[in-house]
Amino acid sequence: MARLRANIAISLDGYAAGPDQSEENPLGKGGMQLHEWAFELAAWRNPHGLEGGVVNASSAVVEETLANIGAVVMGRNMFGGQGPWGDQPWNGWWGDDPPFHAPVFIVTHHPREPVVMQGGTTFTFVTDGIESALAQAMHAAGGKDVSLAGGASVIQQYLNAGLLDELQINLVPVLLGGGARLFDNLDGANVKLECTRAVEAPGVTHLRYRAVKS
Amino acid sequence: MARLRANIAISLDGYAAGPDQSEENPLGKGGMQLHEWAFELAAWRNPHGLEGGVVNASSAVVEETLANIGAVVMGRNMFGGQGPWGDQPWNGWWGDDPPFHAPVFIVTHHPREPVVMQGGTTFTFVTDGIESALAQAMHAAGGKDVSLAGGASVIQQYLNAGLLDELQINLVPVLLGGGARLFDNLDGANVKLECTRAVEAPGVTHLRYRAVKS
Repeated sequence: MARLRANIAISLDGYAAGPDQSEENPLGKGGMQLHEWAFELAAWRNPHGLEGGVVNASSAVVEETLANIGAVVMGRNMFGGQGPWGDQPWNGWWGDDPPFHAPVFIVTHHPREPVVMQGGTTFTFVTDGIESALAQAMHAAGGKDVSLAGGASVIQQYLNAGLLDELQINLVPVLLGGGARLFDNLDGANVKLECTRAVEAPGVTHLRYRAVKS
Repeated sequence: MARLRANIAISLDGYAAGPDQSEENPLGKGGMQLHEWAFELAAWRNPHGLEGGVVNASSAVVEETLANIGAVVMGRNMFGGQGPWGDQPWNGWWGDDPPFHAPVFIVTHHPREPVVMQGGTTFTFVTDGIESALAQAMHAAGGKDVSLAGGASVIQQYLNAGLLDELQINLVPVLLGGGARLFDNLDGANVKLECTRAVEAPGVTHLRYRAVKS
């Protein structure tokens, strides 16, 4: 059965983004450090249109994360911008040829017409809640899994609603000291996770959790 | 060379103890869940004078943690109680035959004469700071390693001072929602950690970090 799988990098002190997020610095102060382990990987560079890169213990994890994904769900903050879209709406952080190459459903309060990007990525803006975004993404995925790309807030919402099947944490040994915490605003009585794999790799530890449905 | 090694269990949301710590509930609300993985292990039960228990992926990790330890350092909160000792000072949470079987040095603001317990445990109260406690423990350990038993606050102090060599985190997939956070009050610019091993085991993931000295 198709699953909803989240994949997110956090610091040792639990932050998915550093303090002072802004349009110029979307990951917040120090937040880019959470992703440095990925940038050097061939398994990450290739899907992002970059050449070269290394192979290490993270490679198989990244390949697995990207495999069998038919659609993507993300929060508005991860797409980019905030508030009403305005007359000339921005197409977000992700460039003209976004790295998703799949239908992307953005959870937002602000309605907007869909946008077709290069390379197979489409952006659809969903204003009637996380269940609707998931249903639309599952339909678009045609039997493949749906990737929940983040950020922290939308992952919390899916966790609390019992809709997430798998959570992969890429734990990076840096301390950000502030920002957006992944494990915040959660109902500990409802959210049950079980670690199914731990992989130590250069600059990151990959922890895969299965959500235990009650 | 003898090393200072800390070993601590934390929740997925980063707490080494739950909210509302008290004399009746020293681990705080829900905090006992952080240690349930250990209680069933033969490798934990045997040194605590209990029979039986299972062998699983945690066993070798626990045995390694307990091996080659010549002395222990802990914070006052982990020993038990707070403030001045009074006329009939309490000997802490740990019973008449504490599980340390080694000299234990307690970092406290309140002077007190040493206490000799059963089974080779002695409690020495150190009021002149963490460096002094470490020096006394290293001397007592006679070339073996020193275990930094916790809690969160004293581990933070040793990390910030650059005195910790190894930190093992036993990451338990529960959410406590409040309490004492391990990765708090730390100077991210000075504290550099590198994951050297990740072991997935029933109910816990063991993450071993080496402190990178600058």
